[in-house]
Amino acid sequence: MKNDIFWMKKAIKLAEKGRGNVSPNPLVGAIVVKDGEMIASGYHQKFGEPHAEIYALSKAIDTKDASLYVTLEPCCHKGKTPPCTELIKKHELKNIIIGSSDPNPIVSGRGVAELKKAGFRVKTSFLEDEIKKQNEAYFKYITSGLPFVTIKSAITLDGKIADNKGFSKWISGSDARAAVQKLRADNDAIMTGIGTVLADDPMLNVRDIKPGSFKPPLRLIIDPKAKLPLDSNIVKTASEVPTIVCVGFISSSKKAALEKAQVEIATFKANNGIFNLKEILAYLAKKDISSILIEAGASLNESALSQGIVDKVVFFIAPKLIGGAEVPVVKGDGLRNLSNCFELSFDTINKLDRDLMIVCYPRSRRQRNQKEIATSLRARNDVIARSSN
Amino acid sequence: MKNDIFWMKKAIKLAEKGRGNVSPNPLVGAIVVKDGEMIASGYHQKFGEPHAEIYALSKAIDTKDASLYVTLEPCCHKGKTPPCTELIKKHELKNIIIGSSDPNPIVSGRGVAELKKAGFRVKTSFLEDEIKKQNEAYFKYITSGLPFVTIKSAITLDGKIADNKGFSKWISGSDARAAVQKLRADNDAIMTGIGTVLADDPMLNVRDIKPGSFKPPLRLIIDPKAKLPLDSNIVKTASEVPTIVCVGFISSSKKAALEKAQVEIATFKANNGIFNLKEILAYLAKKDISSILIEAGASLNESALSQGIVDKVVFFIAPKLIGGAEVPVVKGDGLRNLSNCFELSFDTINKLDRDLMIVCYPRSRRQRNQKEIATSLRARNDVIARSSN
Repeated sequence: MKNDIFWMKKAIKLAEKGRGNVSPNPLVGAIVVKDGEMIASGYHQKFGEPHAEIYALSKAIDTKDASLYVTLEPCCHKGKTPPCTELIKKHELKNIIIGSSDPNPIVSGRGVAELKKAGFRVKTSFLEDEIKKQNEAYFKYITSGLPFVTIKSAITLDGKIADNKGFSKWISGSDARAAVQKLRADNDAIMTGIGTVLADDPMLNVRDIKPGSFKPPLRLIIDPKAKLPLDSNIVKTASEVPTIVCVGFISSSKKAALEKAQVEIATFKANNGIFNLKEILAYLAKKDISSILIEAGASLNESALSQGIVDKVVFFIAPKLIGGAEVPVVKGDGLRNLSNCFELSFDTINKLDRDLMIVCYPRSRRQRNQKEIATSLRARNDVIARSSN
Repeated sequence: MKNDIFWMKKAIKLAEKGRGNVSPNPLVGAIVVKDGEMIASGYHQKFGEPHAEIYALSKAIDTKDASLYVTLEPCCHKGKTPPCTELIKKHELKNIIIGSSDPNPIVSGRGVAELKKAGFRVKTSFLEDEIKKQNEAYFKYITSGLPFVTIKSAITLDGKIADNKGFSKWISGSDARAAVQKLRADNDAIMTGIGTVLADDPMLNVRDIKPGSFKPPLRLIIDPKAKLPLDSNIVKTASEVPTIVCVGFISSSKKAALEKAQVEIATFKANNGIFNLKEILAYLAKKDISSILIEAGASLNESALSQGIVDKVVFFIAPKLIGGAEVPVVKGDGLRNLSNCFELSFDTINKLDRDLMIVCYPRSRRQRNQKEIATSLRARNDVIARSSN
């Protein structure tokens, strides 16, 4: 028997197809079911284009007495597209099954209320946790007005990001490197520090993923003293890949040269050479950046962690021991004692060729204060090694 | 249908019951099957006591035409007990199914040959890899004459064994600590460095496991300059828990005091304060120590890894980030570049409450030279999160 859960799972899977293209909108999937059969389906494909339920309903020939499954509460406001509730009302659907309410205050609960008022039988909260996780960036962005921040690092089993010569290519293997490309494609921006640019001269672009299947992420360089070299790969490709450099002070000549190369300059106040990263996040949020991937060295990692802006940690762990005290993944003294360190919860652990991909979430103070909580119990049962797809 | 694999798996499980009590003997299980039913079973329970097959056969009432499943090749030499082959020959068994040949050169192949010569139908090599892994310490010890060395550490996700105040209790949670006690009980000796003794004043004994269910491991302190304090917990309990201190130089008064406290003194040549650990292993092997657990700090960890004596690595990883350069899990410069670091293969990853228990094996040069090898493919499929029991 194909029940509500079955169809909602299918809609969630469908929603996933939009990843990389819909931000700062949420991923949404919708399915129309009549007499136990799926008669149409759709997903939100691209920012600015129709929403999932509209795609699905427009493809269905006869929606009389059918059920509509949609992962997120249909919108009731006019944005880039007309309100979905209005279009739904034109159909003689019987049931509307909604996965999660929309955290957007201009929608939340109102979409459901409107549909109920119009006489539909509306059921809510199906696989809500799964849908919230699928849209974790959207949920944070829409409720806090700040982008969702993931910190990523490739480390050895003893927590080193490079060897004693500063050599870091390649700590992890090809499967892990491919997963990094996917992470980049899934984020709206990639942030790194000037130290990493000077050491590695990286491109910070997305490679080996079909162009057009994702929105190319913005590159963001944290560079208080405006040291970004004009002949760096970042600057040389700034005309092709949007690039912002965050500076504290910059000479007018350097500014002119960078701007000529199409690098955007954003000025922030630095305190002892360290920015208040929340100011940078707020600035980016205004540019519709809802998710940021930090791929940085020990200093920026430490700033991000100790300033409390990190929402997710993804570590690729190579089965290698380098030893020594140099080049740790996190620098500084901000977290440096056990009672006050940065606490996480393991979420998923996947094996990628010889490496591990470990996903963690920060442990909230509430979690730390409770001995056992429902979510960590669930996480405990959830840890299964899956392949990377 | 209960086939050979079924019975051999059962015998392996049975063999496991001897863990902690049979060393330096191997774990062995045996099952007698007649007309598709198990009529008797046994396992090697304790060093010096009868072997598994003898237990099983002595309990079987009528072994005529029965099958004997035994995980390891029956011995054909007189050790602490008479040769098993002689006792087997007294039974009118039809089939003898042997899991793995015994690597002991005085048995290997000869046990099988004797049984075949006596007219039994002998099948060999059933679940051999599993049995070799179950007896990894025995296989190393018997073929190399040196104990099997496991290095264990509790670290944060960024590879720290303590915070900036040197505080390390408790990095990992209670489930991980319980797993450490089990690891200790499973080993013949626990090795640590004098630095750890001076910093933590540990007991290095086995707690919270039923006494009598394991042979208490010997404690072994690497202490080139004989700094072990007479009022340390180690010295104070040396009359109850066997303790050896490995020194380079020791004054006769200190020696006398330690010996009075029942600490055994072993003298080795130190080079710049570092021992050749293989000499210590050889010394311990002569004392029937077939397995050693190293629970040490960065310096001894580095010596053990760079001197190539490590056979297995067990890390308990706490989901915490401490940051900074101090107190890494591995010190020194011996491994300090990516092309020459200590390479491992992940074996199993288990979640223990909030922590991970990660088991790795050193990657041999042969493995490193081959792009893909059978065992690493297998390891890839093997990575499942299991509870700790």
